[in-house]
Formats: sequence, structure tokens, C-alpha cells
Amino acid sequence: MTTDSGNTRDSGPGTVELAARTSIEQVEEGAELAPKFDADGLITCVTTDAESGEVLMLGYMNADALARTITTGEAHYWSRSREVLWHKGATSGLVQEVVEMRIDDDQDAVWLRVRVAGSGASCHVGYRSCFYRKVPVAAERNNGSDLVFVEHEKQFDPMDVYGDAPNPTRL
Amino acid sequence: MTTDSGNTRDSGPGTVELAARTSIEQVEEGAELAPKFDADGLITCVTTDAESGEVLMLGYMNADALARTITTGEAHYWSRSREVLWHKGATSGLVQEVVEMRIDDDQDAVWLRVRVAGSGASCHVGYRSCFYRKVPVAAERNNGSDLVFVEHEKQFDPMDVYGDAPNPTRL
Repeated sequence: MTTDSGNTRDSGPGTVELAARTSIEQVEEGAELAPKFDADGLITCVTTDAESGEVLMLGYMNADALARTITTGEAHYWSRSREVLWHKGATSGLVQEVVEMRIDDDQDAVWLRVRVAGSGASCHVGYRSCFYRKVPVAAERNNGSDLVFVEHEKQFDPMDVYGDAPNPTRL
Repeated sequence: MTTDSGNTRDSGPGTVELAARTSIEQVEEGAELAPKFDADGLITCVTTDAESGEVLMLGYMNADALARTITTGEAHYWSRSREVLWHKGATSGLVQEVVEMRIDDDQDAVWLRVRVAGSGASCHVGYRSCFYRKVPVAAERNNGSDLVFVEHEKQFDPMDVYGDAPNPTRL
């Protein structure tokens, strides 16, 4: 989850048509985009760095964010904490250019492979990835079960970028 | 999303303690595991192939599935369609061995880097990844907006593995 907000663009070739979901075969084996939005009108999105494969963040899209991502080739999300459409990078400059977009078997999740502008960070805390801590599992736990930082240096100071905007993390 | 179900193991070093969430600083900058489960008691999990970085699937864990994944080092999920704890691979043999587990900034999502047994497939449709189709974006759409298959061969025949078990995809 990250925080930067901003306006969106209407560029890109036309609108996006979503097909009605008519059969499991159509959804799983077909070539029609027929996404399933949840009760809140959202679809989950996992975003990875197109070069390194690192998972940068996990976000959500409503139909509008999905359509704008497809037409512009830049990642748009729905911010659940701020309840606004969110053009990633509009505040921070760290726009995510979509190299490839994929959709899963039952079409309730998308995967964006992106190239990030500037410092390459995608996390509002200042790290490259939101997943900057490791959870020890199985035998590793013999050395203790504390989270282990795998990123050691922030790419930016959140205060410089977001100032006193409210932190999106909810307890 | 995939389908195989099965019993879970109680192996692994001890139980998992989850900390109460007391401050944003603790959650984002601390070393305590203090996950935030949603209204349904679930946390989102993205699972990637530890070698290729490919996103294999997106699933959900309740507290029990999270604890069993941590103690056993094998991926456990909560199946939303079947409403059961699900030890991935128990039916298909395609167990996911956790190479690394990470948690995100606000601790409402985890990332598993896994090694998959057998044919290496993680998708109930038979593909390696659940994300076997690409969505054309921006200029690519000039060649048409149909989904494009990026995996061309199934790794297994779902009928052989799951027989007539109900398909987990919901319309």
C-alpha cells in the first residue's frame, strides 16, 4: 500500500469493454476480459518490478482504475484508505509504467509488471518494495521469530514526499 | 486460485505468536508480526516462483493458515470458495515449499517465494501460473483487446488430478 494521489489522464486508445461472465469455460479458457469485482467493486492487483521480479506492492482497482490502467499504460489503483482513484506516482513522481498486464484464471486478480520512474521506490514508507521485511519460517525460526529487514535503506524520506498527509496505514 | 484440499500437518517448531497492533510505527518499522486480518478474518497472499519470479497465484490465509505456513514451511491457504483450510498440494502433490516469506508495510498482505514440487504447476486449470493470459495495454491495444495466452501448454490434465471435484471458479 502506498499513498500518493493525483489526477488521472484520459489519454490512450479508447474505452475498455468488459464482457459479462457467462460460463466457467469463457472465464478460464476464453479471450474475453470478464473481470469479477468483489462486493466492494474491487479487484486485487499484485505489482512486480518488470526487471527483478520483486513484488513491489499489492493494491486494489475498481472498474475505473482498471480501465485507466489499460488505456494509459500507467498503473491506477483505488485507494481503500482514502477512497479515491489513485494515479500512482502523481504526488511522488514514481509513476509505474506497465510493461505487461496479466489476469488470473477466474479473472478476479491482475498482475502488473512495471518499470518505476525516479528512485524506483513503490512503498509509502520509503522502501523499494512494500515487502521489506521477512517472516522466518520452519527451521529459520530457531534463530528467533522476529521480522527481519531485507531492505536496509529507504529510497526517499516520506516527509519530503508526502509532508504531513495522513499515513494510509490503519491499525 | 486452485483447488486441491487436504489435511494439514502439525510439524514445525512451536506455535506462532501474533502481536497486538498498537501504533503505526510498530506495524511499519517494527520487528513484531502483527498482521491485520480483514472483516472475513483473512489476509491476502501473493505467491511467486522463487527461481523465476513469476507470480503463480493469489490466495488468502486466515490466522490458522498463516500459522501453519510459518511453522511447517509449506504453503497453507484458506479456500474462500470451499470454506476450508487448504494445504496446497495435498490432492495434486504440487506442494509449495516456502523459500522465503515476507510481509508488507501495514502487515495486511504476505508474499511467499516458493519451490513447487512435481510438474511445478500451481493453477487448477493446469497451467504453471494462474496468470496465463495477458491483457493488452496502451499502444498494444491497436492489435486488438482480446486476452493473449502467454502459456501455451497445460502442465497436467485437471480431470486426472481433480476428477469431478467442483471447479472453484465462481461466476
